[in-house]
Amino acid sequence: MRATTIHAPGDIRVSEVPDPTITAPTDAVIKVTAGCVCGSDLWGYRGENDITPGNTIGHECVGVVEEVGSAVTSFRPGDFVIVPFDHCDNTCPHCAAGAHAGCENLGFTVSGQAEYALVTQAEGSLVKTDGQPDASLIPSLLTLSDVMATGWHAAVAAGVRKGGTAVVVGDGAVGLCGVLAAHVMGAEKVVAMSRHEPRQAIARQFGATHVVAERGDEGTAAIMEITGGVGADSVLECVGTGQAIDTAFAIARPGSTVGFVGVPHGVELPVRRMFQKNIGLAGGMAPVRKYLPELLQLVLDGTIDPGLVFDATLPLDEVAEAYRRMDQREAIKVLIQP
Amino acid sequence: MRATTIHAPGDIRVSEVPDPTITAPTDAVIKVTAGCVCGSDLWGYRGENDITPGNTIGHECVGVVEEVGSAVTSFRPGDFVIVPFDHCDNTCPHCAAGAHAGCENLGFTVSGQAEYALVTQAEGSLVKTDGQPDASLIPSLLTLSDVMATGWHAAVAAGVRKGGTAVVVGDGAVGLCGVLAAHVMGAEKVVAMSRHEPRQAIARQFGATHVVAERGDEGTAAIMEITGGVGADSVLECVGTGQAIDTAFAIARPGSTVGFVGVPHGVELPVRRMFQKNIGLAGGMAPVRKYLPELLQLVLDGTIDPGLVFDATLPLDEVAEAYRRMDQREAIKVLIQP
Repeated sequence: MRATTIHAPGDIRVSEVPDPTITAPTDAVIKVTAGCVCGSDLWGYRGENDITPGNTIGHECVGVVEEVGSAVTSFRPGDFVIVPFDHCDNTCPHCAAGAHAGCENLGFTVSGQAEYALVTQAEGSLVKTDGQPDASLIPSLLTLSDVMATGWHAAVAAGVRKGGTAVVVGDGAVGLCGVLAAHVMGAEKVVAMSRHEPRQAIARQFGATHVVAERGDEGTAAIMEITGGVGADSVLECVGTGQAIDTAFAIARPGSTVGFVGVPHGVELPVRRMFQKNIGLAGGMAPVRKYLPELLQLVLDGTIDPGLVFDATLPLDEVAEAYRRMDQREAIKVLIQP
Repeated sequence: MRATTIHAPGDIRVSEVPDPTITAPTDAVIKVTAGCVCGSDLWGYRGENDITPGNTIGHECVGVVEEVGSAVTSFRPGDFVIVPFDHCDNTCPHCAAGAHAGCENLGFTVSGQAEYALVTQAEGSLVKTDGQPDASLIPSLLTLSDVMATGWHAAVAAGVRKGGTAVVVGDGAVGLCGVLAAHVMGAEKVVAMSRHEPRQAIARQFGATHVVAERGDEGTAAIMEITGGVGADSVLECVGTGQAIDTAFAIARPGSTVGFVGVPHGVELPVRRMFQKNIGLAGGMAPVRKYLPELLQLVLDGTIDPGLVFDATLPLDEVAEAYRRMDQREAIKVLIQP
């Protein structure tokens, strides 16, 4: 099949690789309808994460079941499915407790930007639609494989509540989905920290009541003004850098919780501030499967339209251009059509 | 008055210092009935925290109101009161949200091992008993000024719940109180990690169902065996060292929360493990005033007897010996009588 592969920082190609095949009874092979590039793919692209040259890349996709293993009974070829980036059995003690990202049989999508993708725990991970969805729904459904579920997880972890103030640090696709999540959960003030006009616009479409363009101490001062000097009831940290973490803990009110979903890079948590101010940290890799049924319903009934985070669509052959645009912040998120 | 002062690591003296006086309308002066030495006092004693030579030391006490400022209306001279180590106004937005340790008017007891102590926010901080308590109750009431409230906070922060498994890292007075808290809150399994026989005995009196004497990898293995390989539902970190934090995150199950109340020293939080396993961190300096009414009731009705953590009582003149015994782990906690 044709698949996106990474060979060195900045070196993204479309290569011919073996089709994924069923090797375990829990497997399924998905024919990818749409994939996309994730902010976390850029860590390797930028040389900030080690890569294995020649490996496929891409962990977000939706598609149609091509083939299933013998233990997969709820899905059959032809089903349209959302593929959580993190695969889980949905039965182990961790899944049963809602911590699907800690599943004893955890797996990951590794060829989401390709013609086919393998799901290692298909029965526990996949969620299907009734029939084939309208093409207009594909972008929003695609976000459910990662970024919308991840933004939702940030809001859950941060304890967003009706009437409270939620601040979202990070204006990538996950941060924007965090804004949407906080809005849907009923936060009265939803603050997007963003200095990029197109992203600010989507944040407002998603329910942001305030936009703060400043960073660092000025950003903190702006949040303190919005919150009457108290600090935010909930902070959603959707970046993963040391600066974003520092901002998150600077603006969180005493006794609150920072919900973090940005894969941490070079982060040193401010443990003394956390202790002195009783500011907790929760979150991590999103338990996508846990939220999927609820989020799918919200998409299908038109409550949320997270697909707006896609501001470009490119064919698989141009995936390198998709990476370039996202790396340069010329695009928020690029949908890839195999 | 006579007060405990610290002059250098290991150099604890009883000195004549000026009596505390009312300088703000929110102040009260307390004649100390009983004070004690806290594990956190040992940081300075051991040279691991900077000290100001000649300063008074000691933040835990109970006593009788001697004098109050003009804004203090609920207390009068003669009232027996419990003095939270952290003083708060109990009215600011942070107190109103239950985060009393983040009070906008935060203060601290600084001469708890002395004849008199000053409370800077008396109205918001103090809780009194009906009349003078029986002498037998003094030790338990004294624990409410810090260690029992702090152990309780660890359990609350860790989300201890009925039927769950709670593991307490640390067998100091706070850790033992954490065991008691987890037991009262209905945890089915309460595991004390302790290798000191006298502390193990108190842990069992306080409701520990299991004692794990091993540390490091062996300790983790023991907890995994007790929890059927899943990890603890709640972990109470009551030490504050890097090793204790590492143990706490090693034994916490995915999706759970480590409640931490040990003042962090040399701690680097394992942010990647926290992210990958969705293990949160909550807690910090205890909002003592928040819990005081409930804990006082539990002491008065005989449900809890946290005063058992005191295994020695010394007169103020022998406070240096109290520090020596606690430093050498010859005593768990020493009550000081002025």
